[in-house]
Amino acid sequence: MNDVVKRDGTEIAVDGARLWASLMELAQIGATPKGGVCRLALTDLDKQGRDLVVSWGKAAGLTITTDKIGNVFMRRKGRNEALPPIACGSHIDTQPTGGKFDGNYGVLSGLEVVRTLNDRGIETEAPLEVIFWTNEEGSRFVPVMMGSGVFAGAFSLESVYAAKDVAGKTVKEELERIGYVGTEEPGKHPMGAYFEAHIEQGPVLEDADKTIGVVTGVLGLRWYDCVVKGMEAHAGPTPMALRKDALQVATRIMQETVAIAHRYPPYGRGTVGFVQVHPNSRNVIPGTVKFSIDLRNVDNERLDTMDKEIRAFIEKTSKESGLEISIEQVSYFPPCPFEKGCIEAVAKGAKTFGYSTMEAVSGAGHDAVYMARLAPAGMIFVPCKDGISHNEIEDAKPEHLEAGCNVLLHAMLDRAKVASRKG
Amino acid sequence: MNDVVKRDGTEIAVDGARLWASLMELAQIGATPKGGVCRLALTDLDKQGRDLVVSWGKAAGLTITTDKIGNVFMRRKGRNEALPPIACGSHIDTQPTGGKFDGNYGVLSGLEVVRTLNDRGIETEAPLEVIFWTNEEGSRFVPVMMGSGVFAGAFSLESVYAAKDVAGKTVKEELERIGYVGTEEPGKHPMGAYFEAHIEQGPVLEDADKTIGVVTGVLGLRWYDCVVKGMEAHAGPTPMALRKDALQVATRIMQETVAIAHRYPPYGRGTVGFVQVHPNSRNVIPGTVKFSIDLRNVDNERLDTMDKEIRAFIEKTSKESGLEISIEQVSYFPPCPFEKGCIEAVAKGAKTFGYSTMEAVSGAGHDAVYMARLAPAGMIFVPCKDGISHNEIEDAKPEHLEAGCNVLLHAMLDRAKVASRKG
Repeated sequence: MNDVVKRDGTEIAVDGARLWASLMELAQIGATPKGGVCRLALTDLDKQGRDLVVSWGKAAGLTITTDKIGNVFMRRKGRNEALPPIACGSHIDTQPTGGKFDGNYGVLSGLEVVRTLNDRGIETEAPLEVIFWTNEEGSRFVPVMMGSGVFAGAFSLESVYAAKDVAGKTVKEELERIGYVGTEEPGKHPMGAYFEAHIEQGPVLEDADKTIGVVTGVLGLRWYDCVVKGMEAHAGPTPMALRKDALQVATRIMQETVAIAHRYPPYGRGTVGFVQVHPNSRNVIPGTVKFSIDLRNVDNERLDTMDKEIRAFIEKTSKESGLEISIEQVSYFPPCPFEKGCIEAVAKGAKTFGYSTMEAVSGAGHDAVYMARLAPAGMIFVPCKDGISHNEIEDAKPEHLEAGCNVLLHAMLDRAKVASRKG
Repeated sequence: MNDVVKRDGTEIAVDGARLWASLMELAQIGATPKGGVCRLALTDLDKQGRDLVVSWGKAAGLTITTDKIGNVFMRRKGRNEALPPIACGSHIDTQPTGGKFDGNYGVLSGLEVVRTLNDRGIETEAPLEVIFWTNEEGSRFVPVMMGSGVFAGAFSLESVYAAKDVAGKTVKEELERIGYVGTEEPGKHPMGAYFEAHIEQGPVLEDADKTIGVVTGVLGLRWYDCVVKGMEAHAGPTPMALRKDALQVATRIMQETVAIAHRYPPYGRGTVGFVQVHPNSRNVIPGTVKFSIDLRNVDNERLDTMDKEIRAFIEKTSKESGLEISIEQVSYFPPCPFEKGCIEAVAKGAKTFGYSTMEAVSGAGHDAVYMARLAPAGMIFVPCKDGISHNEIEDAKPEHLEAGCNVLLHAMLDRAKVASRKG
């Protein structure tokens, strides 16, 4: 990269205003009154968004291919077409009450990288690709990160084709309907490296007043469903000693979930987000309480220990209370450390511009987690306002988005190598 | 009463089979497939139930009067009509998934008392009355115990007339529609004493293997709405130290609610029955948790102490956590001790038949609570299966219902005095 960086202030830099304008234009498709975006995967709006991004890609001279799960690869030729492409990307589907930046920023910052290289007449050794993955959000169809997951072999094409939305429509028929079933077998696409720029979706960068998060990896997670069965009874006539209060027992486990996370800092996380009380009536002792447990850590051994501790606590609590308690793991992702070289390329890109940085760990899953199974991968975080995402008020500063895009540009050039330049 | 009780086994006793048959016949009106009853206040089914009970009352020679809130008084003449009547009763409206016995037993056991006295040609000094009160359950229209509450002056007639169901219909128009607006001013009805026979709706009698609960009073209660406000955030990206987890704080208060009840035995009760978590999503830290608190005790001083303790704990927890917590009392009933003479009349009635007894305290509210403000009052409890009520599987044994009715008969005679008998 040294050959393109001039320390006298003439480093290649993206056009932050053009990036912002594209983000705002794409955000019009599915725009909500509160300033957010609702563009669920494989809807008409998703098709409109895809068509717009593809048209921009074509205008930038990119070649488009689509695979059978609808992942779209937009390719810029390298001098050496035999080299695997240096890729970047994310997703453009959103949550029902989503924001303008989640995912969309990763795709459009890749497009801005290409536009910048075009403007400067820069050719890279390796080809570049800007990718958008199908149905990352998992709101309309489960599982989440569907397109990248199929690409990485985590799910079979057949199983996700059969996934249905609440109206009973399948992924396959909706993909066909919007015209995004490609011919390429998912995963049969070489990749030299993968970068994903993303808003942090958390408060750490803002809290620390840093511009760039150099992401070293993604937390592993274990999701559980827990059910405590007691006996519903009237709150008035039932003495304390004769109660089987499911909520009283469940709240002990909820407390312990958080306590476990505190025992494994700094990356231990423990959350109960969902609670369902039956019959949920003011003067009835709860008979059944169902709730979720979410445990995360950056280190697999620690995550395993957290798993053992919550299970042991539940067994002990069941014995002590005499109530039946079940715990079922419903999802598991091991921690995903990113490749050293990619992490360094991101750090170096930030240093080039003198951006303030900190090492960061992603608490949320991203398509990059699946890419890391196939190729060297890395991520770039930029702050988002109050750490809020998956919300119509999700917001980010243009200067932060521009900075992240500059880092993406230089990290990709670091990997793809500049072959020639006009300017 | 000694003049009518023969210790040689010829005590006056009710006809248990006739009582059971009437209970089963009334339970046909609004019968549910699971064996319960759905006969909500002031519906067509309530009218049918009222008409049936009134027709039985007329057949037994009773005089019917109705007051302006639809409470129905069925009167059997006494020798001295200047004496205030010795009354009994309860309600015939049910929960949406209610049982056959709750309330209905109190009314039909009163009818069986009258039928028994008619069969034996027994005349009492004081007149007797069998009453059913309007809308005790409060399912369709709030407040609960509406008819007896208006009678006792707890609510104004105007305020309850205006109460609406979910369809927007008012108590007044529904009362008029079913033809149960009487001319008598509520409360303008003398009462010498009031007895209410009822299934226990709790597990204590069954647990202790006793037939008759001699009810000494009703627990006082305080109901609260509690709201904890934190900040919703993604479960993955938000470190433990930066969280404002409303559920984590709310569960501490839920635990304390139960702990407080345990500190004031044997009649302390503490229940959280209702919980609402927002946004209630597996991977989102709860931003707001709303829940109910229900505290009860038999002694007003202890109930006050419990109130002070939960408020102090909430204040402390709010300071420690930095989260805003509100608590609002939404209902209050002071403890209601019954009149000594009525309690003794019940105990003596049970002794006459050699029934096993125990002193009991009602944890639930009953119309008798309001009657106790106006006249000497008492209650008779009989066991119900597994303590279950407000449920279609509510069940009670015919022999227990018969026993409770015999006790009611003798308690009423104890108060009304036998004037003459044929047999």
